[in-house]
Amino acid sequence: MSYLEQEIHEQASVIEHFLAAENDNVAKIAAAIREFDPAFVLIAARGTSDNAARYAQYLMGIEANLLVSLATPSVHTLYEANIKMSKALVIGISQSGHSEDVRQIVTDAREQGAITLGITNDETSPLANEAEYHIYLNAGEEKSVAATKTYTAQLTALALLTAHLTQNDKKLATIQKLPQMVSATIDASESVANWVERYRYMERIALIGRGLNYSTAFEIALKIKELCYIVGEEYSEADFRHGPIAIISQGFPVMVVAPTGKTLPLMLDLLGKLNERGAECIVFSDSEEACKLATNHVALPADIPEWLSPICAVIPGQMFAYHLAAAKGHKIDEPRGLSKVTITR
Amino acid sequence: MSYLEQEIHEQASVIEHFLAAENDNVAKIAAAIREFDPAFVLIAARGTSDNAARYAQYLMGIEANLLVSLATPSVHTLYEANIKMSKALVIGISQSGHSEDVRQIVTDAREQGAITLGITNDETSPLANEAEYHIYLNAGEEKSVAATKTYTAQLTALALLTAHLTQNDKKLATIQKLPQMVSATIDASESVANWVERYRYMERIALIGRGLNYSTAFEIALKIKELCYIVGEEYSEADFRHGPIAIISQGFPVMVVAPTGKTLPLMLDLLGKLNERGAECIVFSDSEEACKLATNHVALPADIPEWLSPICAVIPGQMFAYHLAAAKGHKIDEPRGLSKVTITR
Repeated sequence: MSYLEQEIHEQASVIEHFLAAENDNVAKIAAAIREFDPAFVLIAARGTSDNAARYAQYLMGIEANLLVSLATPSVHTLYEANIKMSKALVIGISQSGHSEDVRQIVTDAREQGAITLGITNDETSPLANEAEYHIYLNAGEEKSVAATKTYTAQLTALALLTAHLTQNDKKLATIQKLPQMVSATIDASESVANWVERYRYMERIALIGRGLNYSTAFEIALKIKELCYIVGEEYSEADFRHGPIAIISQGFPVMVVAPTGKTLPLMLDLLGKLNERGAECIVFSDSEEACKLATNHVALPADIPEWLSPICAVIPGQMFAYHLAAAKGHKIDEPRGLSKVTITR
Repeated sequence: MSYLEQEIHEQASVIEHFLAAENDNVAKIAAAIREFDPAFVLIAARGTSDNAARYAQYLMGIEANLLVSLATPSVHTLYEANIKMSKALVIGISQSGHSEDVRQIVTDAREQGAITLGITNDETSPLANEAEYHIYLNAGEEKSVAATKTYTAQLTALALLTAHLTQNDKKLATIQKLPQMVSATIDASESVANWVERYRYMERIALIGRGLNYSTAFEIALKIKELCYIVGEEYSEADFRHGPIAIISQGFPVMVVAPTGKTLPLMLDLLGKLNERGAECIVFSDSEEACKLATNHVALPADIPEWLSPICAVIPGQMFAYHLAAAKGHKIDEPRGLSKVTITR
């Protein structure tokens, strides 16, 4: 068994462990943030961690009315701009905690007087040390180059932080059910193996999400690129209508992430349009109507609230990328040309 | 001659006209923004206009030390979050001024007490009316569905605004030379017609920029998608190393936007790596060294300062998308499945 497959399957227990270990620390951090009352939130991250940041951009916006901006690291590092961050909450997310440009932004922000938070899977890393506060993912070593369990752990950390930030007891209770939701999603996603070979010679795919699950489209696209070496291009449902829908012709594969929630009616409408154009739709949804509009689908468990759905909806995508890479005979744990820690300037 | 080709060629005169007509208005707006002293900047835009926003994110960050965030419209509209914007400069960019979600964010921001600015090509549009301040692009009607002249006019508006914001007399003098720079770039880009047929059957392409020209990679990718119906996927040089470089194999086409500036050494390094992997590189650069690493290139005019380079470097990309669409026999002015004004909820 590859490390990747193991780590995909570890996700429920990682989340369970994380929630138990870090809840009190996260509650304390949330209290400090509430007291600081940031004017805005800035999140610095790269790669998979940047997709976690994208989830936070929606979640903290929707739940806490905070403007969340994704950092453009080169503005800070390459161009050496002295961006005004003193009134901000600045969060650095990095699996390894060794991403130098992410660490630099957090260091600068702390010097300016911002409230700073690192989210890493290494307590002794530079980012963990430099940030005023730290959330430790405690996911165990991630041996596969393609991140899976640390991604869903990052999302869980951000969901837990937001629930504490808004002191939402209902959400704090719901999040405790996340391990079961993730476990059920992993079970449901095993079915991908039955139909993935159809895509053995697929050369490109569009990934579509909207709102909270825009992050999911990005993360699945990244897994497909990393593991299958094919172009997986992510779009928001809205941006897709603004131009890229022109690329859709007969048989063009489109993966649509469409859990129940505010975005579902829009996704259903888009699925109708995609079907009219003869696109080949792969759907991950708990909506029967959405799944019916697909050539292949994974039926997500019912009763996953929208705000937690990105933590589950990414899993069939991870599984798809894993099984497709296996069908292609690729090295699963050491994708071509990648290393686990990437240093960017 | 198609409208698209005409409009590509109009860009120097559109910019000349804009600079003459709007300079005083933009100076006045900049003074008001300085007085307001925003805690951050939020830009709402879709499609091509969102790529202009991306340019502003870097330019206003680098030059004015402002944190510039690209809005996530669905947080405001679909999820109806009441994002805190009272201390912000909120800019809505829309060619038509009819983008409903962009207008909504500006309206909400103004009600909260934010300083608001609309940038449109229609003085009588809802966005022009709702924003406290308005910059009129005055680019003449854009008849082609794929935007070109309004994009470079939007960038010019943002460059002019930033120069006035920082009261940088040298930059204000330099920007007056932009029409000549753009004109020289259009002339240099005509050479694309000589080699574009090589890509007639290309099915996908990666577009790479970094920093200020990250926006250029996005915009060229969008033109290629809109006009050529092929997947053009945009990456920052840094993110590309973080995963997607795995997709590169012998002959994979990569378009690299690499004008002289802070990012050039990184782009040269990446071009070396792409050559090692046998990628087919298309380069737009004023650097001879960068052009030498390409199968095909457009030599950009020398002496274009980095902060204005995105206004020029996009032009060979527009020309590439235009000529490739023509070589494919596509309808140039009415791409499949697109309309000029897209309504998003």
